Amino acid sequence: MSTISETSKKRAAFISEQKTIAVIGAGAIGLSWTALFLANGLNVIINDPRPDIQEVALHGLDLIKPTLSSLGYDVADLTARLSFESELGKAIENADFIQENGPENVAFKQDLYTRLEQFAKPGALMFSSSSSIPATVFAEKMKNAERVLIGHPFNPPHLIPLVEVVPGKHTSKEAIAEAIEFYKALGKHPVLIQKEITGFVANRLQCALLRESIHLVKSGVVTMEDLDGIVSSSIGLRWAAAGPFKTFTLGGGKGGFPHFIEGLGPMVGHIWEVLGTPTLDEPTKEILLEQAAESYGKIAIEDLEAERDGQQLAILKALNK
Amino acid sequence: MSTISETSKKRAAFISEQKTIAVIGAGAIGLSWTALFLANGLNVIINDPRPDIQEVALHGLDLIKPTLSSLGYDVADLTARLSFESELGKAIENADFIQENGPENVAFKQDLYTRLEQFAKPGALMFSSSSSIPATVFAEKMKNAERVLIGHPFNPPHLIPLVEVVPGKHTSKEAIAEAIEFYKALGKHPVLIQKEITGFVANRLQCALLRESIHLVKSGVVTMEDLDGIVSSSIGLRWAAAGPFKTFTLGGGKGGFPHFIEGLGPMVGHIWEVLGTPTLDEPTKEILLEQAAESYGKIAIEDLEAERDGQQLAILKALNK
Repeated sequence: MSTISETSKKRAAFISEQKTIAVIGAGAIGLSWTALFLANGLNVIINDPRPDIQEVALHGLDLIKPTLSSLGYDVADLTARLSFESELGKAIENADFIQENGPENVAFKQDLYTRLEQFAKPGALMFSSSSSIPATVFAEKMKNAERVLIGHPFNPPHLIPLVEVVPGKHTSKEAIAEAIEFYKALGKHPVLIQKEITGFVANRLQCALLRESIHLVKSGVVTMEDLDGIVSSSIGLRWAAAGPFKTFTLGGGKGGFPHFIEGLGPMVGHIWEVLGTPTLDEPTKEILLEQAAESYGKIAIEDLEAERDGQQLAILKALNK
Repeated sequence: MSTISETSKKRAAFISEQKTIAVIGAGAIGLSWTALFLANGLNVIINDPRPDIQEVALHGLDLIKPTLSSLGYDVADLTARLSFESELGKAIENADFIQENGPENVAFKQDLYTRLEQFAKPGALMFSSSSSIPATVFAEKMKNAERVLIGHPFNPPHLIPLVEVVPGKHTSKEAIAEAIEFYKALGKHPVLIQKEITGFVANRLQCALLRESIHLVKSGVVTMEDLDGIVSSSIGLRWAAAGPFKTFTLGGGKGGFPHFIEGLGPMVGHIWEVLGTPTLDEPTKEILLEQAAESYGKIAIEDLEAERDGQQLAILKALNK
């Protein structure tokens, strides 16, 4: 993972090359990307249909500034290289990169990408933040989809390092390599996902853990808040330092992963057999909503968020991610 | 979660009361507990059948000292209040608390607990580190199991805050409250598990995530190392700062958890339907062992461990846990 000082070097290279990125759609994710791109010295052009987009975007960037500053970025002139262009063709005609954050709607995206193809300069790389529509699907109507792929962030992209890089059927190897280089240069942790699978990887893993979490709360084994406390004081801490396979490699002692599989495999297999398979039916939702109301529901979202973000930032700084 | 300074205050209370704890079984977990107990000012008596237990234990404690020191504990006279007693009756006769870390064998533990009952002083609290045998089962042959329960750490207990407190059928409410107070005083994060369920909570959640991880590696979606990178650069970071329910509460924006369930519930349900259900059969093991050999297998376990522990410690200090 790149350290901030490594990022700074890369940042200098970006600035000297005066690269431009068009951000299509500047909701929460698009704005967070914008902040990160600007902090790294890219020229950013926002294309968004909202009539008040300038006001909204500048306000949103102001809110992100303290975090960027805390991560070691110079934010004094953050918006100096930011511009707005409501006409799609003009917004992208000089862009070296495009990061698209439009609605998760197949017809909308298919149409959008034919227009991107029409107006983009040759060689521009097109990234979609989509979490659910594969590049092969949304690029289906394009003549040439070699330079199109998914760069799916884990929200918010200015803070969390992961970017899932998911190529489509027609994406070229060169484009994949350039995408990975691009996100690395921004200090991100891009990972190549080798199949266009539902939910990609992080969301699937997240959903797997959430499923058992809901099962345990629904079964009265533990409260929602206590379960969160369990995760944050054990496996969350572990996985922030080392993923599951590295953790189990070390769990195998001197024998490493083979010893873990041999010794603890049967226990793992036994637990797999008894994991819950809840659905989000009405009775389940009722239990969850009641507990949510009695716990986090009593705290202002802003306060919850400030607490979480403070801890998140402290961890990232400690890890120098 | 207690901060180190809060722990110090508690520590003073423990020292002034001169409490004694017997550690039954001083393998890796028993030794880690011993280090934590000593650092918090308790008198510790180790009971372990190994003939070379003194040598092994003192060496093991030496290896743990730097971590304790880094966590803010004074380790200059760490072993001043440590003693060894190979005779069980003598080891526990003056103990206020017992932390048992014996083999995970029902008959062994059932026999051990009748002997603990025979020799312990009235009112002693008995904790088992067992991860798999419920208190109701191992205490079955005792006359009075009111003061017996599970205090299951997440390894290693001197470092990771979680302790799962799992009472048996006969455990008294007072004993549960005292156990929670005891572990809190040591700076731990005890959580009451309300049913004696297989794997308790942390290991079940860990296994749920591991299951999908193995599915994705087996399916060729991502490599073992890339999957670890994904977890450590996204959900691991998140969950170290905020557990899954708090995370999804914030994922619901201003509408909180109800908005998350309403908006993203269908996506979650869809992903649940496609999660993998691998078993640890020979072909699966083969894939995992091959990737393990090609990745972490090429690094000395000591180096992997040092890297992980360094990051783990940095995170804990950043969170002041």
